[in-house]
Amino acid sequence: MGLKGIVVECFVGFWDYETAKIMVVKNRPLGIIYRSVQFLIVTYFTWYVFIIQKAYQEIETGPESSIYTKMNGVALSGDTVQDMVEYVRPSEGGDVISAILRKEVTHNQRQGVCAEHFSVPGANCTEDSDCTPQEIGTEGNGKRTGLCVPYYNQTFKTCQIKSWCPIEEFAAVREPALKEAINFTVFIKNTVHFPKFRVLRGNTKGKKNLHSCTYNAVTNIYCPVFTLGYIAKQAEENFTELCETGGVIGVFINWKCNLDLDPSECYPQYAFRRLDLRKDLISSGYNYRFGKYYSRNGSEYRSLVKAFGMRIDVIVHGEAGKFSVIPTIINMVAAMTSVGICSFLCDWILLTFIDKNEIYSDMKFDGVTSDPSQDLATENTTVSQDLTHTDLSDNVQL
Amino acid sequence: MGLKGIVVECFVGFWDYETAKIMVVKNRPLGIIYRSVQFLIVTYFTWYVFIIQKAYQEIETGPESSIYTKMNGVALSGDTVQDMVEYVRPSEGGDVISAILRKEVTHNQRQGVCAEHFSVPGANCTEDSDCTPQEIGTEGNGKRTGLCVPYYNQTFKTCQIKSWCPIEEFAAVREPALKEAINFTVFIKNTVHFPKFRVLRGNTKGKKNLHSCTYNAVTNIYCPVFTLGYIAKQAEENFTELCETGGVIGVFINWKCNLDLDPSECYPQYAFRRLDLRKDLISSGYNYRFGKYYSRNGSEYRSLVKAFGMRIDVIVHGEAGKFSVIPTIINMVAAMTSVGICSFLCDWILLTFIDKNEIYSDMKFDGVTSDPSQDLATENTTVSQDLTHTDLSDNVQL
Amino acid sequence: MGLKGIVVECFVGFWDYETAKIMVVKNRPLGIIYRSVQFLIVTYFTWYVFIIQKAYQEIETGPESSIYTKMNGVALSGDTVQDMVEYVRPSEGGDVISAILRKEVTHNQRQGVCAEHFSVPGANCTEDSDCTPQEIGTEGNGKRTGLCVPYYNQTFKTCQIKSWCPIEEFAAVREPALKEAINFTVFIKNTVHFPKFRVLRGNTKGKKNLHSCTYNAVTNIYCPVFTLGYIAKQAEENFTELCETGGVIGVFINWKCNLDLDPSECYPQYAFRRLDLRKDLISSGYNYRFGKYYSRNGSEYRSLVKAFGMRIDVIVHGEAGKFSVIPTIINMVAAMTSVGICSFLCDWILLTFIDKNEIYSDMKFDGVTSDPSQDLATENTTVSQDLTHTDLSDNVQL
Repeated sequence: MGLKGIVVECFVGFWDYETAKIMVVKNRPLGIIYRSVQFLIVTYFTWYVFIIQKAYQEIETGPESSIYTKMNGVALSGDTVQDMVEYVRPSEGGDVISAILRKEVTHNQRQGVCAEHFSVPGANCTEDSDCTPQEIGTEGNGKRTGLCVPYYNQTFKTCQIKSWCPIEEFAAVREPALKEAINFTVFIKNTVHFPKFRVLRGNTKGKKNLHSCTYNAVTNIYCPVFTLGYIAKQAEENFTELCETGGVIGVFINWKCNLDLDPSECYPQYAFRRLDLRKDLISSGYNYRFGKYYSRNGSEYRSLVKAFGMRIDVIVHGEAGKFSVIPTIINMVAAMTSVGICSFLCDWILLTFIDKNEIYSDMKFDGVTSDPSQDLATENTTVSQDLTHTDLSDNVQL
Repeated sequence: MGLKGIVVECFVGFWDYETAKIMVVKNRPLGIIYRSVQFLIVTYFTWYVFIIQKAYQEIETGPESSIYTKMNGVALSGDTVQDMVEYVRPSEGGDVISAILRKEVTHNQRQGVCAEHFSVPGANCTEDSDCTPQEIGTEGNGKRTGLCVPYYNQTFKTCQIKSWCPIEEFAAVREPALKEAINFTVFIKNTVHFPKFRVLRGNTKGKKNLHSCTYNAVTNIYCPVFTLGYIAKQAEENFTELCETGGVIGVFINWKCNLDLDPSECYPQYAFRRLDLRKDLISSGYNYRFGKYYSRNGSEYRSLVKAFGMRIDVIVHGEAGKFSVIPTIINMVAAMTSVGICSFLCDWILLTFIDKNEIYSDMKFDGVTSDPSQDLATENTTVSQDLTHTDLSDNVQL
Repeated sequence: MGLKGIVVECFVGFWDYETAKIMVVKNRPLGIIYRSVQFLIVTYFTWYVFIIQKAYQEIETGPESSIYTKMNGVALSGDTVQDMVEYVRPSEGGDVISAILRKEVTHNQRQGVCAEHFSVPGANCTEDSDCTPQEIGTEGNGKRTGLCVPYYNQTFKTCQIKSWCPIEEFAAVREPALKEAINFTVFIKNTVHFPKFRVLRGNTKGKKNLHSCTYNAVTNIYCPVFTLGYIAKQAEENFTELCETGGVIGVFINWKCNLDLDPSECYPQYAFRRLDLRKDLISSGYNYRFGKYYSRNGSEYRSLVKAFGMRIDVIVHGEAGKFSVIPTIINMVAAMTSVGICSFLCDWILLTFIDKNEIYSDMKFDGVTSDPSQDLATENTTVSQDLTHTDLSDNVQL
């Protein structure tokens, strides 16, 4: 057989079909275990992986999302009317929007000198030497001038500071809370786009005036207009308490779209949860300060506003799935491979518990020693596995 | 053979190599099916999974991204000059920036009483009793005082309200659109960082003055300066229309980096798409309101501005891939396992269609009954599978 | 055997256990290779995949995150006191906050006509005909009127423009940098929520006053109060330089939670890195412009502020893992399947290098021709693989 023969042989051999030889064990208990484990695995994959987890779908998470928010409503705070221009900050209507529910305003502040607040460490003094000039503590309101002055017509004295005067702690006026804000509405428009599937969805529908409807989870899911009271209630918060301390509430818009179904099945679901930890009493709440500036007689004045508000963070989650060949194949391969696992288990049961006379292990295992000529010499050490069919027939032939 | 013998035997057996016994079927059609299916699977993995999907790479998505935006340009709106300080909000240059293209301004509003707009439900009246005091509808502009007053020098009357007066619906002045804004430029600086690969990339390059170049997808990709007109055109929007209604346009910066190649292959690609649904006519567009406050003779005035603008949301997508041993191995294992799938198919074809005389199933399956001593008794029921090699040679020896 | 017999036989056969027939090769070197490769694979999966990568856990990334920031501190800029209301923008305390460190202010700008800056291309002129009216270049400050006027009491002339006058390039006053801002503090409150595991974590703890403590990575990890100097130092930036050019610094909060351990193991780690590329000298830094508006004698004035600041982008990464049955099973299946890979290798070694006399391939492969009656006729072509055990014993029996 020359080179040509070898090539021909290889070519012919290439088209042979090779398949593993299988031993069939006619043992009913083992068969029942075998089929039961197979059934469990197939059921798990069919039911959990394919039906519940929808492993046959290609998934896209993190869609492109655009949010546009707008608040509406008018209320009286004491004697002044507050409309959206007054209480909404920032005004641009992005994914974070806050409504000011209560203010502490320090009117007519201007750059100058005045007495430091008595609660600042080291601010109390009896004479000028108690106040080192040029020193600003991280908790002070300004730079000390070195003088010790009466505290705003009081009998005690504190260090004089260069600052915006009068200081907030002394002069802030607490305005009443905007309790009627419970009826303010916030319109949250959201569009999501899944680039992989080229699917665009919005949380509004139709051409009706969206600003005059109200969201209802059952009857009106395409009207994303919520009252602040509804949001607070859904987040299990007390609105009156929120007016006092402020708070950050997350509005979660959840898109879970099965694109194999009708498009109407792909609608947003809303959830509400307070985001600043509430148990932690000291640091909970939400407030910030800003100034309103005026120019009078050439000098600059400001109204310092400490605003306690309800901040709404709109957070969008999205997930879309659509049938795809590749994950289907991959998961089916994984399923079939997993079915093979029960062979491990059953082989172990078979060889350990059932195979008393080693008849099965003889059938299953064919022993070959490394050098055929040493077959007889090593027969003793390989006796347990060499009781194979080969040897049996050899023995017969003796 | 004592305990020592068993231990020795186990130790010797541990170093045996075990491999499955294979049956070679010399059937040309089956061989062709077998090799074809194998070829398809191998091709799929080599071409699609490894070359197209780059399964040999470790992937990092969601890089850390920083955006800094800046608008530039001057235009005339009627008789007043608008520079960036006037039309850009918010001014801080984050990932959401808007240019005001048109304004409706209500000048000199102040807290007071005036007539409600006639379009508000229940606002029309003929006498005071038509106006219930202390009631603010969600659509009203303020709190009713209970009086019925003439509507701003008109002959008809509406309820008087406590509000910022005059009301916007009556007194708003529509300013001309900033059509020249089509030439305004927005500089969008973006740096991304892939922490896993420690790779930092920016969308600018070199030390030339970036504010005076213009983006070009072919010749000037490292100059992220876009005119608003270019952005609108790329998003397939009419700029004049945008000036009227406002709109939100997404600027998508897409980093798709193959870090196995030269760094110059890792550059940003830009895409533009309108984000507020346009078909939905009622709620499309983008506008918001803000106030400019003045103090005159001790009382506070404001100019209420309803701004229609073009909001630009910069959205960054990033993905970097680099060769890694682990995903390579995992995908090669998956590929090899998948090749095993064709055995399922070919076994089924073999045993169902080709194996007429059960010669193959006899070869493939070795039957063993659960109790060897019952071999002869059960021979009749297992006849179809017991025509194994074992029995054949036994028969010969009879 | 009728139809009933076939059904019975199928039912009986269904409960048979099928397992692959294995050939045991008693070759010590091959066994050592086989076991070594197995050992490597098992070690890899046990140590790297399961222990290091925690493949037994279900992972959730991208938690819901809420950030609330607040700056504190007072400093002198020249003769004026700057408190947080002055230097913090935007004031609402979201995930992007900036402190103005240096200002260039153009006071008392108002709409009017004045001379263009001489650096603008084409702005220099000697007579009116040099200035085409109605033309705004993208780099100009306003619309040219067509006149050529002296440049702010200088001897040379530039084109007159309609603009906010005087122009910034001429009239801007550079205020001293707020070097004391190095001691300003920023309080960064962060709560994360992993919805899949229903776990909520915050970066603050206890009820102590958080605004008066300072972060320390070892002793005080639950006090998220950082000085600007600390942030700059951690980001390896020079604070004095930042005061000049401004800059964007990322504060990365990293939650890596193993929920199988004690909750105290799930704490935030902070990292700081400058986000605007610094090497790129021209475009690095961070500045923006805004206006402060005044009304005086019925006309509107503004102070144009070019602010150089330190912008802090808070970026949260989160990952939580918890033991779960499904990934455990999937990875164990992958591990077991991978162990099968070493059979490929060892089979190849066995058949290519060790199997000199083809004794092993005869044992492993059982050849069957497509038509049993042609067995003898095809024997010559299948000789290499037909030296199987079957034929050997047949030969012996001749």
